[in-house]
Amino acid sequence: MTHDPSGEDSLIARYFKPLATDPGAFGLVDDAAIIPADGDDIVVKTDAIVEGVHYLPDDPPDTIARKALRVNLSDLAAKGAVPAGFVLTLALREKDEAWLAAFARGLGEDAAAFGCPLLGGDTVSTPGPVMISIAAWGRVPKGRMVHRFGADSGDRVMVTGTIGDATLGLRMLTGRAEAAALADDPAAREMLIGRYRVPQPRNALAAAVRDFASASMDVSDGLAGDLAKLCAASGVSADIELSHVPTSPAATRLLSSGATSWESLVSGGDDYEILCTVPAAQCEAFRAAANAADIAVTDIGAIVAGTNTPRFRDGQGRPITLRRLSFSHF
Amino acid sequence: MTHDPSGEDSLIARYFKPLATDPGAFGLVDDAAIIPADGDDIVVKTDAIVEGVHYLPDDPPDTIARKALRVNLSDLAAKGAVPAGFVLTLALREKDEAWLAAFARGLGEDAAAFGCPLLGGDTVSTPGPVMISIAAWGRVPKGRMVHRFGADSGDRVMVTGTIGDATLGLRMLTGRAEAAALADDPAAREMLIGRYRVPQPRNALAAAVRDFASASMDVSDGLAGDLAKLCAASGVSADIELSHVPTSPAATRLLSSGATSWESLVSGGDDYEILCTVPAAQCEAFRAAANAADIAVTDIGAIVAGTNTPRFRDGQGRPITLRRLSFSHF
Repeated sequence: MTHDPSGEDSLIARYFKPLATDPGAFGLVDDAAIIPADGDDIVVKTDAIVEGVHYLPDDPPDTIARKALRVNLSDLAAKGAVPAGFVLTLALREKDEAWLAAFARGLGEDAAAFGCPLLGGDTVSTPGPVMISIAAWGRVPKGRMVHRFGADSGDRVMVTGTIGDATLGLRMLTGRAEAAALADDPAAREMLIGRYRVPQPRNALAAAVRDFASASMDVSDGLAGDLAKLCAASGVSADIELSHVPTSPAATRLLSSGATSWESLVSGGDDYEILCTVPAAQCEAFRAAANAADIAVTDIGAIVAGTNTPRFRDGQGRPITLRRLSFSHF
Repeated sequence: MTHDPSGEDSLIARYFKPLATDPGAFGLVDDAAIIPADGDDIVVKTDAIVEGVHYLPDDPPDTIARKALRVNLSDLAAKGAVPAGFVLTLALREKDEAWLAAFARGLGEDAAAFGCPLLGGDTVSTPGPVMISIAAWGRVPKGRMVHRFGADSGDRVMVTGTIGDATLGLRMLTGRAEAAALADDPAAREMLIGRYRVPQPRNALAAAVRDFASASMDVSDGLAGDLAKLCAASGVSADIELSHVPTSPAATRLLSSGATSWESLVSGGDDYEILCTVPAAQCEAFRAAANAADIAVTDIGAIVAGTNTPRFRDGQGRPITLRRLSFSHF
């Protein structure tokens, strides 16, 4: 009599046990895992991605795994935390071995690259879309997590990388007008699609955020909406120069030709960049630390007193009203 | 310009922020939560429940929330850990305010009752079935988590509560023959249904498990299959007396009348009892601690040398072959 020869246990043993090399994971043969805590605070975070909502059904499975983990790594980075591990809930329609093998390979490569080991999980069947929920945790020295609150009048508003590429990448994949506008530049299209499928979490910046930022969060639902959240949590407002918001050459071209708008770029989701506020006196040190970590940071405006929604101005200083700030599920 | 007035943020603010009273949750206004660690090990666990798979679509929403949390609390109890908090991923088809209000009420009551505060979460839309994934944390003194491995020849096999009620409860709800056999006893039917919908995790036994058990896990996929996993992890086998396996009066009646079988009871899922092994010399102290915690524990057999699947014997000592050990998703 054999036990569960082709069921979830063998699925886990085959695809995920090889990833669970951290001693706290006990090779996934136990019912729970251990995080040794040595006086640090443990920062915890959960984010889920759903087929057809956060990724497309025919996205390569390794990129789906990478995105599921990276959206959580991005939060840890913005909080100033060093990744310590994650657990995975995988809701699958059927057992597709080729899909699972590629998914597990991508997950394992990213877990190793970011130093964030798989510590456990749950695999369940669902008749509905595939869903991947990850809970991840990291460590910060006691009391040092960087919050959404803490931004103060006069602080500079800084953002990593470029904004709007991922939302354009989704439009490339769904055949929108933006795709036609880049018909002559397949490399640009591929870059944008890559930004949608595989975010680049800024974990190398975590220590600088911890050392210099007064408030911080990651940009996942749109820069404008996420900045509004940071300001609301901090009891402040902000003045943002849209012309200073960093964009990739592909996004810049689409902006120039009118194929996209600032509103689309700053309200579109999936950037997974860090948005943080840095006191003016710390900006030079923050920039130096970012340079040392090889991560681009851009000053896009200032925190100001007040509780109104952040103001956005165009290159001529004129206020722009955004009708839509961010992506919302409901 | 207002931000997200009816979207996921307001949903979270309305239903879940009131539950997030732990200081580490920062009122859910931040992107991550904190578990202060003071030298203890942090035990982590994730389990998900899916509509139509782990619960029925018309189950009362407060019971769905309780089940989602309790299946994780049950694991923490079996590992000897004291609950410390949890994060919630909620994948919903639509925003049904009445459903959400009842769900949040049940979740909040259980979080308070079990001392396991909500620390964060993610709410996503899905076209498919509702899914609730929870990752929960607990604390044990450093190095004291109780594993699946560690059972040794001669140890007694102990189980809490009664076995098989939940799988019978599901049969009551789905109109199987077992329901007809209890047509004259609505109280018994309700008891079985309650055991399916709202598990009773044995967190009050966690300290006793930590102090006296050589190996431990919770019974979630069927006693026979879960015992096989514990034995495999420990490199041992077991001899179990089916007539010693504790059953409720309702289950006993269905067994006597032939309306159910031992095989159904010990291979059915959703018991959420603790299965542990206790060295013979510790059994008296374990029983005393269980009595003090007001939790029934029953000796159902012995750990024996060998690596074969555990053997089950009937009341006359005859071996019984189980064709099916446990529930599997794939």
